[in-house]
Amino acid sequence: MNKVTVLNENDLRKILTMEETIAAVEEAYKQKELNKAFVLPMIFHEFEAGVADMDIKAGVMPELERYGLKVVSWFKDNPAKNLPALFGTTLLFDSKTGAPCSLLDAEYITGMRTGAAGAIGAKYLAKKMAKTLLIIGSGQQAFFQIAAYLTVFDSISDIFIFDPLDANKANAFVTNLATPLESLLAKNPTKKVSLKNTNVSAVTDLAQTLEKSDLVATVTPATTPIIKAKWVKKGTHFSCIGADISGKEEIDPQIFKDAIIIVDDLQQAITVGETERPIKEGVIKKADISGEIGALITGKVAGRTTDDAITIFDSTGIALQDLAVSNLALKIATKENIGQTVFL
Amino acid sequence: MNKVTVLNENDLRKILTMEETIAAVEEAYKQKELNKAFVLPMIFHEFEAGVADMDIKAGVMPELERYGLKVVSWFKDNPAKNLPALFGTTLLFDSKTGAPCSLLDAEYITGMRTGAAGAIGAKYLAKKMAKTLLIIGSGQQAFFQIAAYLTVFDSISDIFIFDPLDANKANAFVTNLATPLESLLAKNPTKKVSLKNTNVSAVTDLAQTLEKSDLVATVTPATTPIIKAKWVKKGTHFSCIGADISGKEEIDPQIFKDAIIIVDDLQQAITVGETERPIKEGVIKKADISGEIGALITGKVAGRTTDDAITIFDSTGIALQDLAVSNLALKIATKENIGQTVFL
Repeated sequence: MNKVTVLNENDLRKILTMEETIAAVEEAYKQKELNKAFVLPMIFHEFEAGVADMDIKAGVMPELERYGLKVVSWFKDNPAKNLPALFGTTLLFDSKTGAPCSLLDAEYITGMRTGAAGAIGAKYLAKKMAKTLLIIGSGQQAFFQIAAYLTVFDSISDIFIFDPLDANKANAFVTNLATPLESLLAKNPTKKVSLKNTNVSAVTDLAQTLEKSDLVATVTPATTPIIKAKWVKKGTHFSCIGADISGKEEIDPQIFKDAIIIVDDLQQAITVGETERPIKEGVIKKADISGEIGALITGKVAGRTTDDAITIFDSTGIALQDLAVSNLALKIATKENIGQTVFL
Repeated sequence: MNKVTVLNENDLRKILTMEETIAAVEEAYKQKELNKAFVLPMIFHEFEAGVADMDIKAGVMPELERYGLKVVSWFKDNPAKNLPALFGTTLLFDSKTGAPCSLLDAEYITGMRTGAAGAIGAKYLAKKMAKTLLIIGSGQQAFFQIAAYLTVFDSISDIFIFDPLDANKANAFVTNLATPLESLLAKNPTKKVSLKNTNVSAVTDLAQTLEKSDLVATVTPATTPIIKAKWVKKGTHFSCIGADISGKEEIDPQIFKDAIIIVDDLQQAITVGETERPIKEGVIKKADISGEIGALITGKVAGRTTDDAITIFDSTGIALQDLAVSNLALKIATKENIGQTVFL
């Protein structure tokens, strides 16, 4: 019999820190670049078009001695049945023996690793002394973005929240932010950060806010651009997070024109990411993409050249992020004896 | 939180019956044929060629309200570490909501569903009043084949066991067969069968044994034919089970020449099944395959035409068999309150 550790959302909330999540995701990007970790072909099935689908994303990370997969399903009508629309489940295996070692809820991990991704893009692409952050979207992912940016940047003085559909939602988000955020940030093992020196406010005038934003994180499911090219000031960095299936987009394709573009996965970015539309419309060519984030981290490609450059990180999400953070969670859970144990 | 039932091998041995497994596999074949169940593309990864690999086989069965996947890994060097070379894990989801509902050990289920497959092929293709069964191979799968054939056929008088590599292994298999087999057969809910009226013997002269065998089940990992065409008597039915990756074969490609050929999955059969080699060598063309087993079961294609015909069922194994039997196990486990429960 083989011991399998089951980690649900409650367990993961207890053990995961944003600081370690960022390190794990950065390491995953690096391993992908160095061909030490591999993304396997994705399986996608639509139960009913526009109503229900699921995908299986798998990867192999021999350096971590893990391989595994994440299954994510989306059922539009679930909320009417008092169920979440999304279910995410990760299964983790030992890549030295093949044995299953952990079953994890994937939703909280997806939230954390996606927050980490946005801030890592900014860490490597934003200008020095970036001080102001604009978040487009006020859902759950806005929370993780803020936690990750505050962990990465020491200097954030202002965070602006803009909700493209509902200004009240942005207000409510700001009101309810401090307690859960401070609780997550307090877990960081070495980077002791808090909201104390940062002013968070909901905004409604996007053009005006962009004039004073050094960093922009887009975390909406939009399918038409929210940010116009003419509003963008010199030196802005964009981490585009929302676009992960064909047709989604959050910023004007024209912003890509003279930008320095880094993506998490080339193939995914041009087929399902924010980069899809600028390429389809001929604003840029594939060759205009500088490279993948792993290549930037390892110094194989250059990032920002001047303080005035516009930089874009297109994060579509890759299985290796999930596996790396799941592995991190399993390691901490094992050490701290957290989670349910079953024998398979 | 979502309730997930974990079923390990001990649980599965308690609850699965061969009679119900056969019914579930037959139903899975039927649903595939009727486009009511779908096999998704397979993911395969080789950690090191000839040393370690893994595959992910997924499928969707809306009629059962299930979708899911089976992960099987093979690590050649595991036995030296006191670990099984193979690990199999199945994850089952609700296809109405996407929620994960069960994590199961996949090995025992693979054994049972593969035994069922062989006997189902014989049920629909063998001549009436088949009385004698030859099993090529004396490993674990030989056991499941016997259980399935005895459950399907009332008339088996003799079972012959031939091990192509080690006659002693065949002897030991026969000696140790009765107790576990009677125990499994006794679980059948309605088909009360036993070994009582059947004589089981190890054999060494394959040519002679084929002369008196109505049914042949091949369950070895052979890569060169064990059974020669000239030994085969009129009217024999073959269920070829062993070949599931390119290069494996157990019977002379010439046997396919005038045979009636049924497969579990057309594409798999000609790429990785027993049918691969006869097609590659030009003994038969793809058009010479009558069709899939689901088409035979539903009456869309004909099977045996005369008592003298040679019939072949090429069973490569499909994910729907695993999902259908996993679903059966979950149903019984829920009813009988068996298994470990975790909250995800």
